[in-house]
Amino acid sequence: MSGSIFGKNFAISTWGESHGPALGVVIDGCPAGIPLSEEDIQKDLDRRKPGRTAYTTPRTEDDKVEILSGVFEGKTTGTPISMIIFNRNQRSRDYSDIKDTYRPGHADYAYDQKYGFRDYRGGGRSSGRETAARVAAGAIAKKILCYLGIQVLAYTFSIGDIQIQPSNFDVDEIYKNPLAMPDKEAALKAQRYLDELKEKGDSAGGVIECVVNGMPPGVGEPVFEKLDAALAKAIFSIGAVKGLEFGSGFEAAKMTGSMNNDPLRVDNQGRVFKQSNNAGGITGGISDGSPIVFRAAVKPTSSISIPQQSIDRTQGKNVEIVVKGRHDPIIVPRAVIVVEAMTAITLVDYLFQRILSQMDLIQKALQ
Amino acid sequence: MSGSIFGKNFAISTWGESHGPALGVVIDGCPAGIPLSEEDIQKDLDRRKPGRTAYTTPRTEDDKVEILSGVFEGKTTGTPISMIIFNRNQRSRDYSDIKDTYRPGHADYAYDQKYGFRDYRGGGRSSGRETAARVAAGAIAKKILCYLGIQVLAYTFSIGDIQIQPSNFDVDEIYKNPLAMPDKEAALKAQRYLDELKEKGDSAGGVIECVVNGMPPGVGEPVFEKLDAALAKAIFSIGAVKGLEFGSGFEAAKMTGSMNNDPLRVDNQGRVFKQSNNAGGITGGISDGSPIVFRAAVKPTSSISIPQQSIDRTQGKNVEIVVKGRHDPIIVPRAVIVVEAMTAITLVDYLFQRILSQMDLIQKALQ
Amino acid sequence: MSGSIFGKNFAISTWGESHGPALGVVIDGCPAGIPLSEEDIQKDLDRRKPGRTAYTTPRTEDDKVEILSGVFEGKTTGTPISMIIFNRNQRSRDYSDIKDTYRPGHADYAYDQKYGFRDYRGGGRSSGRETAARVAAGAIAKKILCYLGIQVLAYTFSIGDIQIQPSNFDVDEIYKNPLAMPDKEAALKAQRYLDELKEKGDSAGGVIECVVNGMPPGVGEPVFEKLDAALAKAIFSIGAVKGLEFGSGFEAAKMTGSMNNDPLRVDNQGRVFKQSNNAGGITGGISDGSPIVFRAAVKPTSSISIPQQSIDRTQGKNVEIVVKGRHDPIIVPRAVIVVEAMTAITLVDYLFQRILSQMDLIQKALQ
Amino acid sequence: MSGSIFGKNFAISTWGESHGPALGVVIDGCPAGIPLSEEDIQKDLDRRKPGRTAYTTPRTEDDKVEILSGVFEGKTTGTPISMIIFNRNQRSRDYSDIKDTYRPGHADYAYDQKYGFRDYRGGGRSSGRETAARVAAGAIAKKILCYLGIQVLAYTFSIGDIQIQPSNFDVDEIYKNPLAMPDKEAALKAQRYLDELKEKGDSAGGVIECVVNGMPPGVGEPVFEKLDAALAKAIFSIGAVKGLEFGSGFEAAKMTGSMNNDPLRVDNQGRVFKQSNNAGGITGGISDGSPIVFRAAVKPTSSISIPQQSIDRTQGKNVEIVVKGRHDPIIVPRAVIVVEAMTAITLVDYLFQRILSQMDLIQKALQ
Repeated sequence: MSGSIFGKNFAISTWGESHGPALGVVIDGCPAGIPLSEEDIQKDLDRRKPGRTAYTTPRTEDDKVEILSGVFEGKTTGTPISMIIFNRNQRSRDYSDIKDTYRPGHADYAYDQKYGFRDYRGGGRSSGRETAARVAAGAIAKKILCYLGIQVLAYTFSIGDIQIQPSNFDVDEIYKNPLAMPDKEAALKAQRYLDELKEKGDSAGGVIECVVNGMPPGVGEPVFEKLDAALAKAIFSIGAVKGLEFGSGFEAAKMTGSMNNDPLRVDNQGRVFKQSNNAGGITGGISDGSPIVFRAAVKPTSSISIPQQSIDRTQGKNVEIVVKGRHDPIIVPRAVIVVEAMTAITLVDYLFQRILSQMDLIQKALQ
Repeated sequence: MSGSIFGKNFAISTWGESHGPALGVVIDGCPAGIPLSEEDIQKDLDRRKPGRTAYTTPRTEDDKVEILSGVFEGKTTGTPISMIIFNRNQRSRDYSDIKDTYRPGHADYAYDQKYGFRDYRGGGRSSGRETAARVAAGAIAKKILCYLGIQVLAYTFSIGDIQIQPSNFDVDEIYKNPLAMPDKEAALKAQRYLDELKEKGDSAGGVIECVVNGMPPGVGEPVFEKLDAALAKAIFSIGAVKGLEFGSGFEAAKMTGSMNNDPLRVDNQGRVFKQSNNAGGITGGISDGSPIVFRAAVKPTSSISIPQQSIDRTQGKNVEIVVKGRHDPIIVPRAVIVVEAMTAITLVDYLFQRILSQMDLIQKALQ
Repeated sequence: MSGSIFGKNFAISTWGESHGPALGVVIDGCPAGIPLSEEDIQKDLDRRKPGRTAYTTPRTEDDKVEILSGVFEGKTTGTPISMIIFNRNQRSRDYSDIKDTYRPGHADYAYDQKYGFRDYRGGGRSSGRETAARVAAGAIAKKILCYLGIQVLAYTFSIGDIQIQPSNFDVDEIYKNPLAMPDKEAALKAQRYLDELKEKGDSAGGVIECVVNGMPPGVGEPVFEKLDAALAKAIFSIGAVKGLEFGSGFEAAKMTGSMNNDPLRVDNQGRVFKQSNNAGGITGGISDGSPIVFRAAVKPTSSISIPQQSIDRTQGKNVEIVVKGRHDPIIVPRAVIVVEAMTAITLVDYLFQRILSQMDLIQKALQ
Repeated sequence: MSGSIFGKNFAISTWGESHGPALGVVIDGCPAGIPLSEEDIQKDLDRRKPGRTAYTTPRTEDDKVEILSGVFEGKTTGTPISMIIFNRNQRSRDYSDIKDTYRPGHADYAYDQKYGFRDYRGGGRSSGRETAARVAAGAIAKKILCYLGIQVLAYTFSIGDIQIQPSNFDVDEIYKNPLAMPDKEAALKAQRYLDELKEKGDSAGGVIECVVNGMPPGVGEPVFEKLDAALAKAIFSIGAVKGLEFGSGFEAAKMTGSMNNDPLRVDNQGRVFKQSNNAGGITGGISDGSPIVFRAAVKPTSSISIPQQSIDRTQGKNVEIVVKGRHDPIIVPRAVIVVEAMTAITLVDYLFQRILSQMDLIQKALQ
């Protein structure tokens, strides 16, 4: 496989290039009997689509999804769900300026080395546009999680140096401000920072935090299929992610065992809980009943208008390159829904797997 | 699968509990024709084995590996290589003190929730002892990398607050000092810090850095099988890892695009290189020819001698627990070779996969 | 996964229902650099499409394929190839007569039991129409085999009791007569037999033979991934196949070892060959350099116009059912190209895998 | 992977050569909570072990199994179960007579072509001895099926031309006579036939039939993961199998639709049943509630004492070869338990998968 299939029980297969006629996803393993319509998916796609705010590329795409299979009389049939999004705004411009050079920070050079040639029109398969297909699949995964009482919530945790403050945390702000930051004040500060960078033709990075509530204990497999390992693969598969930490994360490396271990307790009703959550909801690779918490570091957008140093592939010589076209000065806010999607897809896969851990659960299901 | 199989082309299947009769690994997918002996593997196992230094558990295990299949007349045959390590020092002690309670920071509670019961003798399958099997497999992976001119080097980057200094970097120190730190001075400082913690019955965490030299460009698959995503799964599958970053990592989130993008250049001989390596050797999920660089945050050892709060599983009430037995005050130095092993196994898998990217390479191999 | 993904290195993911808007396939793992156009695929699809002869359903479908991704400037890019075929002739008729009953010989009852409900409009996902997607993928696999000097040839071996005669064998007849039988005389006899059955509203079965020429030795993996085991899965995944045999097949069970063993010989030029091919080109699961030969038994079309006994699902009572609509009196001739497609897809997968058997081949490819 | 891993949910990984120190299997995916002891496994292994009757090789092996992991306090823990069988009777003889030639009918030549060299001491990995590991895993699969009310029964259906008669069918005979034939009379006839062949140094083939009772409907996946396709891969992965048919099988190819379709009926208690079972219990790849029935053709043992034609690998010339050593004149009776094992392993895998088809079943299990 060339790497476009993800998941084992709930498997998604994505396809499509940024400048091709369409992109899409096939989901193999969605159980039968779930009510599903295109609206369920469209609302998540709309959170990712370009051109919505001052901080996203002005390329306008409707990103209208069509379901081509796997749904009958409004319910999933258990067979593959194929979804397609046509690329309506593929400006056919002249690419001669970037055809033979590589954009720094992009996958251009690596793709060329791998395949011997590349689709030079805007990244081809390495374009962030590919993530639209993931968001479509993620919307279905989130519907399944809903049945099981689980919510995935991601948001912008920081942009550059500007970080949200716990005291200002306001969930509604995620959907209100253009930066998906659950802190109005921090969002305003970050906007000013981005306005400055935009003017210079530069870009910014940031951190996305994701919290999963309602997660039952016992999900994840020992050794290689640990839940955090699976989520790590899912999150690092998002183009610009360069770091990831669960719970206390890199801070844990500086703590002592007595500080970092989370004490277990029972409450008055006999319910077990952890007094702290340094583990981020996963111990030994298996969910422990606390919320899952992780943070992903996203690098600044690679496409900037400032002249950069690169090479010419045909002549093998050093050149200066200016990347033209429409770019996001920051991709963090648009990546938030992609993080939610990949998290949801992974969780569904492992929740399904969890049934197979105990003979008791298997018998319960089959009898 | 319950999660004990890793890899697609070079697939390893590990088994065994800390207090069972033996543990081992079966490698399915090692190519034929590689000279292999038990000594090749033993030398890596010796780097992981307990009881070597003042900073590892005094449990003494020889960790002698035996090859049971897949090698004929000193060469790999292309069929499964089965390796076994008998547990010789499984002190049969009284476990009644921990049978019904959960050690904070350990997987005890999560396993119990997942399976309905658990092997309470020292962690069972969640024990760090399981990683011996990975190291054995990793030794073979490193032999294969050797053929292809690739070296994997991991070492202790920091312990608590004490970090190695680039100016003091000395590779030989990795094998000389008990903390696998390539900086003699930092190692001494860290030893003093650990001596203090040991006295209190507490433990420390740290960061492991890994560098891969000689990595050709073009390895890794687009979208879900990105090389960094695969390495992330491999590294987060190591028990105590709570964070991971490639290249500039979490710092990238604070940088601007113009700072973080790595300029591409050609040298006098026409060889392409990157002027910086903020990407950590991977762009768009595909190796770019620069060294691969990542850092993993390891939490402090969960087993400490200080009394901790937990619960009794049968009575459902709060209790205080003191974890007896033999623990490492820090697991970072022993985890260094595990990081090397998991990295090597992943790289072999993706190098093999890389051949299948181009029809040209396929024809070259088959004709 | 719900079973719509096939293959490991050359992986195809199919989707679509007989009465949905479209069907298609995504190929993940096609190497970069292969010239590919829609015409390459259309010619195989045309061999499967309905309405071509008197012995196929009169449902007329153009089965026009569109490539949506994975090809750039006329060559495969190494990324997923998505192909779509729109269902243009989905007669919207009244299904009330079959909505609550099950067609004997069809998957209707089994699907209902599996999923709790089903798409009752002509089979949904279990319809033979699904195989159009396989044929599209198979056309690409056959292009790859072409590069490696391998030809896959399938044809109708028998219909009912009428079998082709070796002395009459004529390859051109496969493409000339409506039954894909490489024996003009047998084809005429079979047509008379089918004409009779059609008149009665009944249907016939038959046997398809497949021969692979140019197959190099050494392809296939020991134990579970034997080449014949893989081909068996591929061929039995075609709806109506009820039997399969390689080489001397069921006859081998009646032979003695001395009759069935194929003697090995070298010719004047030192080339190794087998004096007979009872093994059908595969020994111990690995190709032995002789042509691969197998035969698949295809049951008679389940849809017949004769009244049959069945049940009503809502009332739980016995009923009589007459299956209306457009059926093939025999599916064997249209299944011939499906057998070729599944064989080609499997062979490509295992040829790619073969490279990874020897360190020598790996080094040849990577250096 | 080199092909020694089988299954997705209930995955087995086998290893070991006929003349190595040991062979074994690791099961990844056995649910927790199943009582398991070595005796459970030994009784199936004893049915396969050599030296029991006049019609098996006189090589004597105890085939004593040891469980090395995955069981705690008499119950499976949900983690990998490793089982080992030491080869106690590996006569170290002189192999110079077969070192450089290939035994006709064996995998010798194909292995040599694949790997560049081979373990010439008795077949290495291609030896039938490898199936002992499958039988050990199968014994556990059969225990799981037992929980779900499913029985797998295989037996010798025919040897050479001698076939069991339905009127003489006696289950007990399977365990009583040395040929595992459920027909005393046919068994005696077959013994006479084998005695004759043995005298000549020749061997015989035969057919194994397998019936699965208690199979619930709805198991198997559409398209590529059809239950019959999966069983076909499982059965063709057994060394000497050359043909396979389900239900009416090759006969179906000669029948008409009206003869072959199985009418559906309800009985007095409202239970659905099929009036015939030409489908062999599987329609559209999914179990239909009738018994699963299939027959596998097994070729005659390749090792015979009669001189045969072959080649010398080093000199590239034609030679005559006499295969020395201990052979079974027929392998069918010993393969019966291997067919049961592979069937059971496959069914467990797909029964587990079946839970994931419906959201209702998933919720039932998880809540």
